[in-house]
Amino acid sequence: MNDLAPSLLCITEAEARQHQAAYAYTLDEGPLSDWPKFFTDPCLYRITTRVNEERKMPLSIMLCDNQAMLYDRVEAVEKANVFEPHFYRHILSDSRVLSSQDDSLVLETSFICVRSMLDGRMDLFTAGKYVDHMVKHDGRCLFKSKTVVLDHSRIDTLIAIPL
Amino acid sequence: MNDLAPSLLCITEAEARQHQAAYAYTLDEGPLSDWPKFFTDPCLYRITTRVNEERKMPLSIMLCDNQAMLYDRVEAVEKANVFEPHFYRHILSDSRVLSSQDDSLVLETSFICVRSMLDGRMDLFTAGKYVDHMVKHDGRCLFKSKTVVLDHSRIDTLIAIPL
Amino acid sequence: MNDLAPSLLCITEAEARQHQAAYAYTLDEGPLSDWPKFFTDPCLYRITTRVNEERKMPLSIMLCDNQAMLYDRVEAVEKANVFEPHFYRHILSDSRVLSSQDDSLVLETSFICVRSMLDGRMDLFTAGKYVDHMVKHDGRCLFKSKTVVLDHSRIDTLIAIPL
Repeated sequence: MNDLAPSLLCITEAEARQHQAAYAYTLDEGPLSDWPKFFTDPCLYRITTRVNEERKMPLSIMLCDNQAMLYDRVEAVEKANVFEPHFYRHILSDSRVLSSQDDSLVLETSFICVRSMLDGRMDLFTAGKYVDHMVKHDGRCLFKSKTVVLDHSRIDTLIAIPL
Repeated sequence: MNDLAPSLLCITEAEARQHQAAYAYTLDEGPLSDWPKFFTDPCLYRITTRVNEERKMPLSIMLCDNQAMLYDRVEAVEKANVFEPHFYRHILSDSRVLSSQDDSLVLETSFICVRSMLDGRMDLFTAGKYVDHMVKHDGRCLFKSKTVVLDHSRIDTLIAIPL
Repeated sequence: MNDLAPSLLCITEAEARQHQAAYAYTLDEGPLSDWPKFFTDPCLYRITTRVNEERKMPLSIMLCDNQAMLYDRVEAVEKANVFEPHFYRHILSDSRVLSSQDDSLVLETSFICVRSMLDGRMDLFTAGKYVDHMVKHDGRCLFKSKTVVLDHSRIDTLIAIPL
């Protein structure tokens, strides 16, 4: 084993944060077609609510378990954006590690997302946390699973939007 | 002195941030009964407003100077939560070190807290900063004092809620 | 070249974050007269909107290209504050590095700013990102340029306020 080997296998918290940050900027700044590239294939991407999680209810607002489904979401959002232009801004707080192994890391990250409409309105769009299982493939961090747990249950306009 | 000794005595900024993050997740995710464990005993936990601080007024919205008082607050909040279910989400910004010694660190950390009600309402609950004096006991970071300085003076519903 | 030399020339991400954090605390906590000291002289400080940036329109809401102009802004704000007291709180998310050289770093940082009025009102004042070109002068990080890109176009009350 050479000196470079560990960094290809082990995930550090700093790398995990960097992956998370790049993910958030891709959602906010685009191109959204890069979004699926943050995940393994197959993967598990899920949006749910805190009440559902606490009651162990399996219901999800969005669920994708492979990259093709993620690309379908991208296409849906890009079509929806034609009709109602607006911007999103994710703000992440510090992460907390839930479990850690050499080649994988499970952590949670509180976030809020602010939405700005072109006409000047701005509102607090959502708040919650990510629960992420990150792995390393060929030296790159990837989400093996990402669960978006929303604090609230106001979900009507969320359906098409990756978070 | 062996190689491990310094890490048992010195507080690094990274450790301080980790302690702060764990504190915030405990407030948001529970169990709230873990909240007092983040402090020394005796300790100083205080919620005040920015106007009070700038005028050097000693008035506090909440003041606890030992762990028994902190546990009293936990009990009060758990009773209050029976009547009005809602969730909080703290988002922390980067910290700024105000003073630093080998075995203690004083820093300030801007934060906001978003409240989500079960019926779907979500609002910006509070904004302000923590001013924290952290020490190390038996290798663990602890708050010797934590002052929560709120930017606003809208305090009526805050009384029972640790921040 | 001695061991200290690189740290006088190279900017690390950690130093860049620390500079950014100190900048935000100076805006929120004052003294505002320290604000220009975060920049080189000459410099480029610009506030614009996301729509303008995406359309490559050169229009700025605020533009200062030297420290004297920054000090003029400080004076304007201090006069304006006499009439309408309020507080600001910046919350920064993680940064993403856009380009990096030994002695300079270009990165973007998402942020929101919350405004609290003395009468108790609190609102989400603005959201957007910083695009910063940082350099090192005599061992200190400085902004060679800072572009504040606002997600929204509600700009009427922003004119006098550094962000």
